[in-house]
Amino acid sequence: MTSRSADAPGTGSAGTGNGPAVSRREFDALFDAVRTWGRWTPADRGAWNRVTADHVRRATAAVRSGVVVPLALPWNTRPGPDNRRAALHHMTDLGDVESPEPSTYKDFIGADYHGKGVTHLDALCHIAYRGRLYDGRPAGDVVGAAGARFGAVSALGPLVTRGVLLDLPAVLGIRWLEPGRAVHAADVTAAERALGVTVGEGDAVLLRSGHVRRRAELGAWDPGTASAGFHVDAVPLLAGRGVALLGGDGDSDVRPSPVEGVHSPVHALAVAAMGVPLLDNLDLEALSAAAAEAGRYEFLLVVAPLKVPGGTGSPVNPVAVL
Amino acid sequence: MTSRSADAPGTGSAGTGNGPAVSRREFDALFDAVRTWGRWTPADRGAWNRVTADHVRRATAAVRSGVVVPLALPWNTRPGPDNRRAALHHMTDLGDVESPEPSTYKDFIGADYHGKGVTHLDALCHIAYRGRLYDGRPAGDVVGAAGARFGAVSALGPLVTRGVLLDLPAVLGIRWLEPGRAVHAADVTAAERALGVTVGEGDAVLLRSGHVRRRAELGAWDPGTASAGFHVDAVPLLAGRGVALLGGDGDSDVRPSPVEGVHSPVHALAVAAMGVPLLDNLDLEALSAAAAEAGRYEFLLVVAPLKVPGGTGSPVNPVAVL
Amino acid sequence: MTSRSADAPGTGSAGTGNGPAVSRREFDALFDAVRTWGRWTPADRGAWNRVTADHVRRATAAVRSGVVVPLALPWNTRPGPDNRRAALHHMTDLGDVESPEPSTYKDFIGADYHGKGVTHLDALCHIAYRGRLYDGRPAGDVVGAAGARFGAVSALGPLVTRGVLLDLPAVLGIRWLEPGRAVHAADVTAAERALGVTVGEGDAVLLRSGHVRRRAELGAWDPGTASAGFHVDAVPLLAGRGVALLGGDGDSDVRPSPVEGVHSPVHALAVAAMGVPLLDNLDLEALSAAAAEAGRYEFLLVVAPLKVPGGTGSPVNPVAVL
Amino acid sequence: MTSRSADAPGTGSAGTGNGPAVSRREFDALFDAVRTWGRWTPADRGAWNRVTADHVRRATAAVRSGVVVPLALPWNTRPGPDNRRAALHHMTDLGDVESPEPSTYKDFIGADYHGKGVTHLDALCHIAYRGRLYDGRPAGDVVGAAGARFGAVSALGPLVTRGVLLDLPAVLGIRWLEPGRAVHAADVTAAERALGVTVGEGDAVLLRSGHVRRRAELGAWDPGTASAGFHVDAVPLLAGRGVALLGGDGDSDVRPSPVEGVHSPVHALAVAAMGVPLLDNLDLEALSAAAAEAGRYEFLLVVAPLKVPGGTGSPVNPVAVL
Repeated sequence: MTSRSADAPGTGSAGTGNGPAVSRREFDALFDAVRTWGRWTPADRGAWNRVTADHVRRATAAVRSGVVVPLALPWNTRPGPDNRRAALHHMTDLGDVESPEPSTYKDFIGADYHGKGVTHLDALCHIAYRGRLYDGRPAGDVVGAAGARFGAVSALGPLVTRGVLLDLPAVLGIRWLEPGRAVHAADVTAAERALGVTVGEGDAVLLRSGHVRRRAELGAWDPGTASAGFHVDAVPLLAGRGVALLGGDGDSDVRPSPVEGVHSPVHALAVAAMGVPLLDNLDLEALSAAAAEAGRYEFLLVVAPLKVPGGTGSPVNPVAVL
Repeated sequence: MTSRSADAPGTGSAGTGNGPAVSRREFDALFDAVRTWGRWTPADRGAWNRVTADHVRRATAAVRSGVVVPLALPWNTRPGPDNRRAALHHMTDLGDVESPEPSTYKDFIGADYHGKGVTHLDALCHIAYRGRLYDGRPAGDVVGAAGARFGAVSALGPLVTRGVLLDLPAVLGIRWLEPGRAVHAADVTAAERALGVTVGEGDAVLLRSGHVRRRAELGAWDPGTASAGFHVDAVPLLAGRGVALLGGDGDSDVRPSPVEGVHSPVHALAVAAMGVPLLDNLDLEALSAAAAEAGRYEFLLVVAPLKVPGGTGSPVNPVAVL
Repeated sequence: MTSRSADAPGTGSAGTGNGPAVSRREFDALFDAVRTWGRWTPADRGAWNRVTADHVRRATAAVRSGVVVPLALPWNTRPGPDNRRAALHHMTDLGDVESPEPSTYKDFIGADYHGKGVTHLDALCHIAYRGRLYDGRPAGDVVGAAGARFGAVSALGPLVTRGVLLDLPAVLGIRWLEPGRAVHAADVTAAERALGVTVGEGDAVLLRSGHVRRRAELGAWDPGTASAGFHVDAVPLLAGRGVALLGGDGDSDVRPSPVEGVHSPVHALAVAAMGVPLLDNLDLEALSAAAAEAGRYEFLLVVAPLKVPGGTGSPVNPVAVL
Repeated sequence: MTSRSADAPGTGSAGTGNGPAVSRREFDALFDAVRTWGRWTPADRGAWNRVTADHVRRATAAVRSGVVVPLALPWNTRPGPDNRRAALHHMTDLGDVESPEPSTYKDFIGADYHGKGVTHLDALCHIAYRGRLYDGRPAGDVVGAAGARFGAVSALGPLVTRGVLLDLPAVLGIRWLEPGRAVHAADVTAAERALGVTVGEGDAVLLRSGHVRRRAELGAWDPGTASAGFHVDAVPLLAGRGVALLGGDGDSDVRPSPVEGVHSPVHALAVAAMGVPLLDNLDLEALSAAAAEAGRYEFLLVVAPLKVPGGTGSPVNPVAVL
């Protein structure tokens, strides 16, 4: 990988573009450098194996104010540029189907939730690189029309750990990162310093770019085309810290991808190489405000995916407790 | 309501049947006695307003071992006597729809989740008694084909509070309560004494009947016909204690209902009168084992429903932390 | 209703706009003039009662070439301005779920098919005017969350009758009618003369505006905003002819609606007043070409809705046989 | 294949069991004998290429009474032994979502329609034998999570042809064939004689076993376990006659399968070898009555599958016109 200062003119001004460009060969070396295949048992909990009962105890003990902040976007049934496969919500009883008393009101929900419209967790079977899921499992052998036999969300269970908010707009004194802005290792360490928090073993790292605020003010856009997120050059730092989970108000990847021939390189590194599930499409606005008010960017984070056997992830409503 | 000792022969032996029978007039008096309409702002969070930041702090501070126990049943796509509206799980990408690299694996999930097959939360708009939702809102005015404008799950948000497990089979030294066995106020207080825990303001009370163990050993049955759960005579005690949430491995109601003309009387009292959401169809087997091992029947409970605007509830995977 | 020549400047040049404007009072008089409530048994087959076995025999006997033309759009799973609630198509077996041999390939389809994206039939319970369905049935009494007890698609069954194509672009020597262009009674009679066909009792009248061709050449637009279709002043003529079915490559209504306070006046007249089901979103391009080649604008039409008890309509693939 | 008289005692009395047993080697020889790979262009319309405009003309001209009989079962949303994946039907507008006037009533339908509960058409991509679809296409190459690129229902279009009802109970003077009863070539020719009809090139052959009547009188059972249908020894006759479509009130296969290691041998022969789509789960009761009354077992048949690109079939409501 070329150094950041080598950013070609035209890929954006230094620090605001998605570069530097990364060749496929560089990417593959990076993939090998961060991968943890063979390290964990059970393998399909991946990096969540890092979160021991000790981590859980410390994370719960670190609660201060008791303020609870949910991180999910509203279930979105309207299609749009960031909601290509709109979620379903159908009322199935309006007090007139099941006999009263009492009368009952029921609904059906459904979603093809991967994408940009639904807050969700990616399980380890969601991503394969060069045909292999995390731990080197051949995707073609273990995922079929009935679901995944390795790396399913049902194998993950819930996560209770310390969360850290990397609130880049707060650090930079701006309203949001523009779509396409890459977040680099230096941004992470600068944020740690500015926010008074250090990412450590077993942590859930949530990257706020201000996506939801920008959408509220300027309207929706297609995050597949342009989105703020991590450049792959930030991944070795996060890997070295032993993170358990990455999340964000985007999907962790800067887009357009700076990596030749790889549309979602952070997905490939985190999920397939490191066994780190991802939380996509969070609403981090209220958490940003609460953290600023508390002057504290760490909190208890609870992520409780639905237990879908063979599932590739789950819609979730992660909960931060400050 | 007649006294418990008045159990008519034929409704089962004392303590093991669903009685005593309750007349509609008695039920209505009970409804009025426990209702808290007009008490909370915002009204559609109902009894969750009882859970203050102080409760949250105390609940998190009470974590001891850091053992995390998820409470959801597996997402069940097979119909059966306790799964009349089977959930959907469809793979929508098997690495061959979105272009690699990386290749992606995706799925669709869907469920008409009220019923007996899916672990879920009932929001306040789920139940109306005599045409009124909690807080006296006329159901016909506020619930329509687009969802609920009062009492929706999106108005609840997540719950973080102390959970208490009323593990009746553990108290009674049996494997499970037989379907149709009512749990009375005296059973609750006896369980408190035996388990060394006292239900208090803002608590989430989880009633274990051993349903999931019985199902595993004897096979599925129709819980609409016979199910262990609270008799309405236990509700004043729970109301007096100021509970925020009731849950169980059934759906909280003993069935058949002992109340004349009311199929789900505990639903009516909890949800519509008291503003207490319900957690239905929990798997409490692992929590029972963990609590027994810890010798402690209280824990941090986190319930994080999906944020469905207008939704009547949500599939959830509640998390206990001991 | 004011005469057509009274078209206000600004609503478009004569013959090309959606006018003349129609007051609510005029519309209500028109509704009463064309309604056939109380006329048919069974009432919920409405105007399909006009199609007797004699009509069926004549329609089949009139087949000449044996050329078969399907009229459905492709099932559209991509959202767009004319596909707000995209249809679902999920593969559920890829030869790996059910045991071989043989191996089986299966799929799930789903659609909230009313709208502009799916070719579908509107049953009589789809539309109520002033609270009443066809035959004066109060909609609130007969339609609920479990479906319709009057006017359901399951009560219609299939339709086999003579179809007539009113191919307006062919008549006018243009590629398509611009969205917003109203089709009047005079257009219908002019088309009859030009195409050598006369609409009669029990006929299915299909109006081609060239919508599908325009969409192919210029891209999709929102037909809810602008669409070519019948002005209400064409309805008395069609009612007088005793049509059984109206259909088109739009949804029969010109949009914007020329009627004060009524967004879909032809729907209200046809479905609710006359008991005439509608076929929306047809692809009439191949039929136009086949009819032109044959020099004949009548054909056997078969519409076979799915038998959904209580359903408000059905996705269909109507078949024309020339 | 051993002769029918060699039926082992225990597999049922001659003519009433599912035998004779067929070895895999015999089956493979039969597969090769009837296959028509390489014969048709376009290949993925398979045997529907046999139905020329001449056939269509003759079929329509043969209509006598004009009696129209739909052949679909009701859309079934209740799970049961013959409805493992219940269909969905959700009301999505009850006059309160889209603004009046008029008020609109809408619904969502969905189904994983292959199985025993939904009347449907099997397209050519539905079945692969030894990894190959019709015309020898490797299933793994042409079917994926996005659907089928060969043999999809969208490639079939509608079928308009002569239908022939093989009404076995009418021929045999019984109410129904017992589940597990095989229908042999001799039964077909006997039925032709008794019913005065001869199956020919391009015909749709509908086999009535009386399944729907039996279900109405005795209740539902699992047709995967026991079902009346064709024995593979009837297939060469049907192949020789050049049929275009096979259908029935079961799924054409006698079950249990008489063929070693092949669960659906008639599916394999018809769909994969001969390119003959299948119509499963028809309701043939009304057609039986109408044919008996008319004294005529041939009719116009119209099958109009939804145009699902890549789809493996479609729910349908086939229409017979006598």
